[in-house]
Amino acid sequence: MKPWFDQLRVVLVRSRNPLNIGAAARAMSNFGFQNLRLVTPWEPSYLGARSAVGASEVLLKAEVYGSVAEAVADCGLVVGTSAVGERELQHPLQALEQGAEIMRQGLAKAPVALLFGSEKFGLSNEDLSHCHWLMRIPTRDAHISMNLGQAVAVCLYELVRGGANAPQASGQTAASAEEAERITQVLFEALCESGYVPSLGEPAALEKARRLLRRMNLEQSDAVVLLGMMRQILWRTKHPKHEDD
Amino acid sequence: MKPWFDQLRVVLVRSRNPLNIGAAARAMSNFGFQNLRLVTPWEPSYLGARSAVGASEVLLKAEVYGSVAEAVADCGLVVGTSAVGERELQHPLQALEQGAEIMRQGLAKAPVALLFGSEKFGLSNEDLSHCHWLMRIPTRDAHISMNLGQAVAVCLYELVRGGANAPQASGQTAASAEEAERITQVLFEALCESGYVPSLGEPAALEKARRLLRRMNLEQSDAVVLLGMMRQILWRTKHPKHEDD
Repeated sequence: MKPWFDQLRVVLVRSRNPLNIGAAARAMSNFGFQNLRLVTPWEPSYLGARSAVGASEVLLKAEVYGSVAEAVADCGLVVGTSAVGERELQHPLQALEQGAEIMRQGLAKAPVALLFGSEKFGLSNEDLSHCHWLMRIPTRDAHISMNLGQAVAVCLYELVRGGANAPQASGQTAASAEEAERITQVLFEALCESGYVPSLGEPAALEKARRLLRRMNLEQSDAVVLLGMMRQILWRTKHPKHEDD
Repeated sequence: MKPWFDQLRVVLVRSRNPLNIGAAARAMSNFGFQNLRLVTPWEPSYLGARSAVGASEVLLKAEVYGSVAEAVADCGLVVGTSAVGERELQHPLQALEQGAEIMRQGLAKAPVALLFGSEKFGLSNEDLSHCHWLMRIPTRDAHISMNLGQAVAVCLYELVRGGANAPQASGQTAASAEEAERITQVLFEALCESGYVPSLGEPAALEKARRLLRRMNLEQSDAVVLLGMMRQILWRTKHPKHEDD
C-alpha cells in the first residue's frame, strides 16, 4: 500500500442501501484504501451494513458525519462524482482518467475527499458546492447512472492503476476544506450584509460563493491572507464608515 | 458504442447471487456491452435477477448455457478472470491494463469471451482449461477477492477506457474456441489411445491438452491444418500398422 493511500477519504452522502455501503467498503479494502466517511446515512441501512456477516474492517472503522462540510473539513481537495447534467456546468468536469491523476497529485500534499451521492438522487447542489471539481466515469449516454458500489470500485481502480509511481510532495500545501469554508462563510456574510444576496436567494448565493472559493484551489498560505482580508471587509460592511469620520 | 463492443461475451459461470447477476448486467449496459452469457446459473437466482424491478435489457436478452465449452464456442479468444493462486501458474497471466489491450485487438478479429467464476469458488480448473490466458485486477494481497459485480464493472471500464481508438482488424482470423476444442478432443482421444492418459487421470489430461491448445493462439487456417493432422494421427493410433503392411 502506498503511503498516499491513507490520505484518501471516500465520502458516501446519504446512502440508503446497506449492500451498497458494504460494497463500497469492500472495494476500498480490495484496493488498499481505509478511510470511509458517511454523511447522514439512512440509519437502519448503516447499522445493517455494519452488522452484515463479513463486514470489512473498513466499514467497522467508518466515521459518520452530520454534513458534507464536516466530512471534508480536513481535505485540501474535494472531488464530486456525477453523471453529467445541466447543473454540473457550474463546475469544471474531468474525465476519470485525468481526474485521478490530479487527485494523486493532491494526495501527495493533503487529504483528498471523493464524494458519492445517494443512489437515487446523486449529489445535491449544496453537496456539489463543496467540491473543487467533478469527475465523470465514461458510461454511455443512454445509461449513464452506475450502481454506487460499482462506481466506487471503478474510481478506486483508476486511482491505483495510474499510481504505479507515487507522486512526490511539492513544497506547497493546499488549503484545507475547513479553511476554504471559513473564507466562504465570511464572504457569504459579507454578501448578505452588502445586499447582494436577496436578489439570488440565500442558499443559491452561499453555494455560488463556495464554488467560487473551491475553484481557486488556494494554497494554505494564501488562504490565511484571504481570510484576513475578507474578515476585514465584513467588519466594514457591519461598521459603515461615517462621512464625517 | 464502438462496433467491436458487439463482439464481447461476458460469461458468468455458476453465479449464485441474483444481485450480482443484475449488477453485472447493469455495468454492461453502462459501458455499452450487450452480450451476457450465463453458464449453469443457480436457477432461482437467475429467475430472480430477471424478474427484478429495473432488470436491464442486457439481462433479459442473456443466454443460458450448459457448459463453458458451449458458451465460448464462437469465440476466438477466451479470457478468465481470477485472483492469483498456485493453480493459475499453468496459465499466462496478464495485468488488467495489458490484458484489456490484447482483448481489444482480439475483438477486432472475432468474438472474445471474458469469464467470471462463482462468488465462492471462482473458476474451476476445468473452466480455466478453456481459457487462453488469465487476467488479474490489481487488488492487494491481503484482500484479493472482489465482489462479482464490481469485478465486471472494473474490467469493462478498462476495456472502454483504453479503447478510444478502435482497433483495426488484421488480415488473420483467430481460430474459434469450437475449432480449438475439436482439436483438443482429437488430441485427447489420441492421448488415451496412446496410453499417455492413464498415468495422469482423464480429467487432468483433458485439461492439460486444452490449455496447451489455447496457449497456441491458433489462426483459423492453421487450426484446419492441425485438426487434419491430429485426426490422421488418431486414426493411426486406432489402426496400428502391421509389421507386414
